[in-house]
Amino acid sequence: MSNAQPLERAVGEGNAAPARQQRSAEVLKVSTRSRPSAVAGAIAGVMRENGSAEVQSIGAGATNQAIKAVAIARAYLSEEGIDIVCIPSFIDVAIDDEERTAIRLLIERR
Amino acid sequence: MSNAQPLERAVGEGNAAPARQQRSAEVLKVSTRSRPSAVAGAIAGVMRENGSAEVQSIGAGATNQAIKAVAIARAYLSEEGIDIVCIPSFIDVAIDDEERTAIRLLIERR
Repeated sequence: MSNAQPLERAVGEGNAAPARQQRSAEVLKVSTRSRPSAVAGAIAGVMRENGSAEVQSIGAGATNQAIKAVAIARAYLSEEGIDIVCIPSFIDVAIDDEERTAIRLLIERR
Repeated sequence: MSNAQPLERAVGEGNAAPARQQRSAEVLKVSTRSRPSAVAGAIAGVMRENGSAEVQSIGAGATNQAIKAVAIARAYLSEEGIDIVCIPSFIDVAIDDEERTAIRLLIERR
């Protein structure tokens, strides 16, 4: 499976509001610098709107931020009676014409 | 929530067969040195036996290995018609009398 989208921008970096690159696909790209609470807010927003969300990360630092974000989003959403689960898989993405393996976390309601 | 078990040994390190510390709780403790495929085999085994499994990791490197292991276990088990999901949360664990925050991945059948 190949995804040609570069991970040039990530959610929850710095003080900027979490940006969603693609409204249709709702892929939240997480970097090492992403703040887990900001990404969690973005996940919660997408879950409320769409019922599912997708988070992608490359590397241990980014994947760690991503999984922390899911744990925080779970706490946010459980207060609203929304119970989320996460389905991890590998996905190949192209970064600067180089193929990298990313972790894809598909988030769904249980 | 506190868990007094130290993470002194982890599954899938080196060439040793993945060890399960606690038969009852089935907590698989993953370190940076754990091989994801070995941990995945352990997860698959526990899922087949018990229907649920718990993975714990401390730090970005270990959490990355843990989530990769879940992705691999998902592939193993889907061939047997078992569809797994993962529920991340934070858990406080005591390591050498110091409290650390671990990531707990609860793995269940969908």
